[in-house]
Amino acid sequence: MNKVFDGKFIKLYNNDGWTFASRKELETPSSDTTKPDAVCIWASHIQTNRVVVVRQFRKSINDWVWELPAGLVDKGESLIQAAKRELFEETGLTLVGIKDIIGGYPSIGLTDEYQAIIRCEVHGELSTANLQENEQLTIHMWDEHDFRRHRADRIDGRLAMIFLTGSF
Amino acid sequence: MNKVFDGKFIKLYNNDGWTFASRKELETPSSDTTKPDAVCIWASHIQTNRVVVVRQFRKSINDWVWELPAGLVDKGESLIQAAKRELFEETGLTLVGIKDIIGGYPSIGLTDEYQAIIRCEVHGELSTANLQENEQLTIHMWDEHDFRRHRADRIDGRLAMIFLTGSF
Repeated sequence: MNKVFDGKFIKLYNNDGWTFASRKELETPSSDTTKPDAVCIWASHIQTNRVVVVRQFRKSINDWVWELPAGLVDKGESLIQAAKRELFEETGLTLVGIKDIIGGYPSIGLTDEYQAIIRCEVHGELSTANLQENEQLTIHMWDEHDFRRHRADRIDGRLAMIFLTGSF
Repeated sequence: MNKVFDGKFIKLYNNDGWTFASRKELETPSSDTTKPDAVCIWASHIQTNRVVVVRQFRKSINDWVWELPAGLVDKGESLIQAAKRELFEETGLTLVGIKDIIGGYPSIGLTDEYQAIIRCEVHGELSTANLQENEQLTIHMWDEHDFRRHRADRIDGRLAMIFLTGSF
């Protein structure tokens, strides 16, 4: 395998004729699922029984996307630590109970990225006071009606599946 | 925006300091959702009431991944045409009824890839006779028990969400 592009946040490798993107520094392809690249947080807000959704401006499409709160797992950080940190940074909310965790490859033909998805309960008041400076983001709480209202908008793959399974 | 890597199946662009992967030839970032890059097929097999799953060897991780049948939408092809073609190529099955379609960005921080996910009913006999030569793939039919048995395996993001929502 050889590296064909080396960026700070994205690298490209070619393995046996197949070029793919990765966030990782690799010598050989890795199928290690114990250290997910990113964590997505499917959070039910206890006080309101709504799902926490962020709307973020994405330079990859120059447009806004509705998403579950999510972020990269930092070096030395556990999955749960990353989830708590990202949730707090993006929304000001506190994770109080984990219901389930699962991992998956969101786009395995294009990238080796591996995402963990945490289904959990959260509480607190919404706040963007802890947002990183470069993030353009608003916070929302969706009930079933909101899910239906936004189904044709730009949404991330997790929200798409929550919609498709009717799990709101 | 400028192109920083130009591959046949994957390109990298830098837009205002943000580098992202794309399958498309672009002058500016595109938020057009009318032409998804790929289609994922969540198929219920009518005769057996099971979900059609493929296991595919992926060079990006040098390992096997359980996935929904999926593929790129070819130029000039509609979403439904692509779904029918990919389903037939990968599994030999025939699409008979569409229940729902939704689109989503599977990894918007890394790529502008936009996937459509089709929930549908299919019928026929499993066959890999129409597989493309470069695809290493086996076909399976999962019931609820199989979903539970494979939850800790390498799976794609759609199967992860079907699992997390308990929609099997």
